[in-house]
Amino acid sequence: MNPYEFIEANHNQFLEDLKDWLRIPSISTLSEHNADVRKAADWIKAHLDSIGLTRTEIFETPGHPLVYGEWLGAGNAPTVLIYGHYDVQPADDDEGLWQSDPFEPVVRDGNLYARGATDDKGQTFTQVKAIHSLLQSGQMPVNVKFILEGEEESGSNHIHTFVNEHPDLLATDVVVVSDTSFHAPDQPSIVYGLRGITYLEIEVRGPAQDLHSGMYGGIVHNPAQALVEILAALHDADGRVTVPGFYDKVRPLATDERAELAKTPFPPERLERETGLKTPWGEPGYELHERLGARPTLEINGIIGGRTGEGAKTVLPARALAKVSCRLVPDQDPKEIEALIAQHVASITPETVTSEVRVLHRGKWAIVEQDSPFMQAAARAFELGFGKRPVFTREGGSIPIVGTFQDQLNAPVILMGFGLPDDNLHGPNEKYALENFRKGMQTAIRFYEGISTLK
Amino acid sequence: MNPYEFIEANHNQFLEDLKDWLRIPSISTLSEHNADVRKAADWIKAHLDSIGLTRTEIFETPGHPLVYGEWLGAGNAPTVLIYGHYDVQPADDDEGLWQSDPFEPVVRDGNLYARGATDDKGQTFTQVKAIHSLLQSGQMPVNVKFILEGEEESGSNHIHTFVNEHPDLLATDVVVVSDTSFHAPDQPSIVYGLRGITYLEIEVRGPAQDLHSGMYGGIVHNPAQALVEILAALHDADGRVTVPGFYDKVRPLATDERAELAKTPFPPERLERETGLKTPWGEPGYELHERLGARPTLEINGIIGGRTGEGAKTVLPARALAKVSCRLVPDQDPKEIEALIAQHVASITPETVTSEVRVLHRGKWAIVEQDSPFMQAAARAFELGFGKRPVFTREGGSIPIVGTFQDQLNAPVILMGFGLPDDNLHGPNEKYALENFRKGMQTAIRFYEGISTLK
Repeated sequence: MNPYEFIEANHNQFLEDLKDWLRIPSISTLSEHNADVRKAADWIKAHLDSIGLTRTEIFETPGHPLVYGEWLGAGNAPTVLIYGHYDVQPADDDEGLWQSDPFEPVVRDGNLYARGATDDKGQTFTQVKAIHSLLQSGQMPVNVKFILEGEEESGSNHIHTFVNEHPDLLATDVVVVSDTSFHAPDQPSIVYGLRGITYLEIEVRGPAQDLHSGMYGGIVHNPAQALVEILAALHDADGRVTVPGFYDKVRPLATDERAELAKTPFPPERLERETGLKTPWGEPGYELHERLGARPTLEINGIIGGRTGEGAKTVLPARALAKVSCRLVPDQDPKEIEALIAQHVASITPETVTSEVRVLHRGKWAIVEQDSPFMQAAARAFELGFGKRPVFTREGGSIPIVGTFQDQLNAPVILMGFGLPDDNLHGPNEKYALENFRKGMQTAIRFYEGISTLK
Repeated sequence: MNPYEFIEANHNQFLEDLKDWLRIPSISTLSEHNADVRKAADWIKAHLDSIGLTRTEIFETPGHPLVYGEWLGAGNAPTVLIYGHYDVQPADDDEGLWQSDPFEPVVRDGNLYARGATDDKGQTFTQVKAIHSLLQSGQMPVNVKFILEGEEESGSNHIHTFVNEHPDLLATDVVVVSDTSFHAPDQPSIVYGLRGITYLEIEVRGPAQDLHSGMYGGIVHNPAQALVEILAALHDADGRVTVPGFYDKVRPLATDERAELAKTPFPPERLERETGLKTPWGEPGYELHERLGARPTLEINGIIGGRTGEGAKTVLPARALAKVSCRLVPDQDPKEIEALIAQHVASITPETVTSEVRVLHRGKWAIVEQDSPFMQAAARAFELGFGKRPVFTREGGSIPIVGTFQDQLNAPVILMGFGLPDDNLHGPNEKYALENFRKGMQTAIRFYEGISTLK
């Protein structure tokens, strides 16, 4: 059967298989889910075995394992390395916002709802089933390798070393990553720019133990107050980051790139639709899509200290903690930014408390050349698969492994994303459009067929 | 037998009775101890019956009951209302810091160790046995009423209404409260000033749901960032509260009062011993004991938003919350301060987010006139009982019922505290010095004898 017919004939089975995988709560940031992460790795390894790969293997790391698979029967045709991740974000539902159990996938209105539906089990599975459909047809146009990670949502702590240490195993002509989203529901896009990241904890400590706010309030510097004062001092009134040197290495947007990006603006009505907000915020002098794609940020991801439960407790807390991350752009260096922040926090910490800045993880930004033959082939594949020429965009998120692939494997990375802007990845009611699942497989197949002679 | 001889002759029995009461874990904040709280109320009611009161009664409230008792056989002599509380703080011992079971009282080195030993069963029982000793002597110099509460440690939610609704039952010439501590082990003190309190929540909301910090970071105002900026703007760099009007009604410390308070300073070495801090903090121009006793504060008691668990989550939180309380001093009005804060927070909230200020509870400050005849009689009683003239101090904490007694019963409130500064109330190994139990009873008897002609 040709691969397109195979997709149509087996769509329901593909969906049921994906649901099975999504039922495993492989939350890599929570240690109580370690066994689930392992289970999700075993599941996809077994599935890769079942679709006709000639070798599959689980590689242990000090953290969660990597799943590898390959089929190298296409001789001199190009080799493709497909990257995806099988871990997912937590799905806390304290406020009851999930309309259905995040780990009991259901289809509603043409969408599959589950944690991981789009990020990234659903998109990874789109690639897996595209390869399956090609393999069963007997007309596989490329050699293929899979490398699937279980730590993408918890900092990708071990894949970088693995890539560095296995250049032959992973040697490839092109890398494909399906872990991004369309610019608009009817507008496919190829992301050529990603921001980097550094994720920090800032902790302020004061008294040896929690104190009674009546008995000590007024003579002891409250660590929660000191922390909010430190955090508030990290931005100016306009929202610019005030850490000295923070913007020094930011590459200015070239005029032509700026003009190209202006074709895919971030409309304010989209902001309102997706977030309920009528008023955007941010750095003056830049459009919304530029602030997201080409400007760095410093964001409070979490803050905690003292009494956080119901009701009143007159405590003067002993310590307070913030989780803070920066999105970084060319040519900022994560380690350099961490040092600048640590230095600045130390310099503005009053002597009445102590502070500590800890790095949780970091990742480099990435820029992919737009006019390479592989990028052009990807654009044609999208046009065939979705009926519309994709736009080239820069995204605000971070996929640090992209930079590592570029540097270590010396291959272009194609960000062939099938998500939609309202897929709620990382939020409640994460979904994946079934239409994008189907057309995504078709697009991937078109791409592999399109590059078979490129080597 | 005269009352002093009676105390000596029956000291062991008094101690055994107190131990019985302390064995009842009457923790009012934990609903699983509701039956114990009731048992402790029944126990002290029966005990008041046994010492010769002519009427005792349990008054139900929507929460824990109030225990009332009276003996009104002294004709035209003054009437004394004695307040105490029979509920206690929790006694969690997760860290194994209690050297003996908090609810199995034991005597070690002249101290009685148990939860509630000083706060407030032990101090309340000191008053009960002083009255017992006077009653059995046949020379009772005053009329006496007891009102004993079971919700002091959980917010005193119902006694205020009860006092308002029972002016005749509680009518009195003076109120006595034994629920405070000495300034130093050998230095009795009478607290004449207590701070009031208002406890608030400040919540900032932004997007309709948590967002991905990569996909929206830079174009959405982060509510956690807006909250820390609002909170940071509530103090200036010196630690003064910047809410307009906050200090307007603060009564300046008179020169002579300042001189009197200077006799009982808060030594920096005490701060280091109790908190581990070498560097105090606070409002310039005021000594530590003045900052605690006579200056208002605005304190962050808790803060929470976004990712607070282990590890990294790149969330841009939808909302962030702070619990904030102010200790208030004469002549600040809690409701007025709440309005000033709400107004100020609204005025500094940027249009990119919304904020809300909610009041959780409030209580008035209290000042007791130092040169009233009752205060002077109390000072003489301490001098006779403990061999040392007491100092008059202001405390940083709040006992809101004191203000209610003053306002509703129109009577001075004598804070006749027998605790010591190291009694560890609310902490592990709470204790009550047996010497203070004995001398406390003697002091109370001296006081009642001393005021018999004051009416």
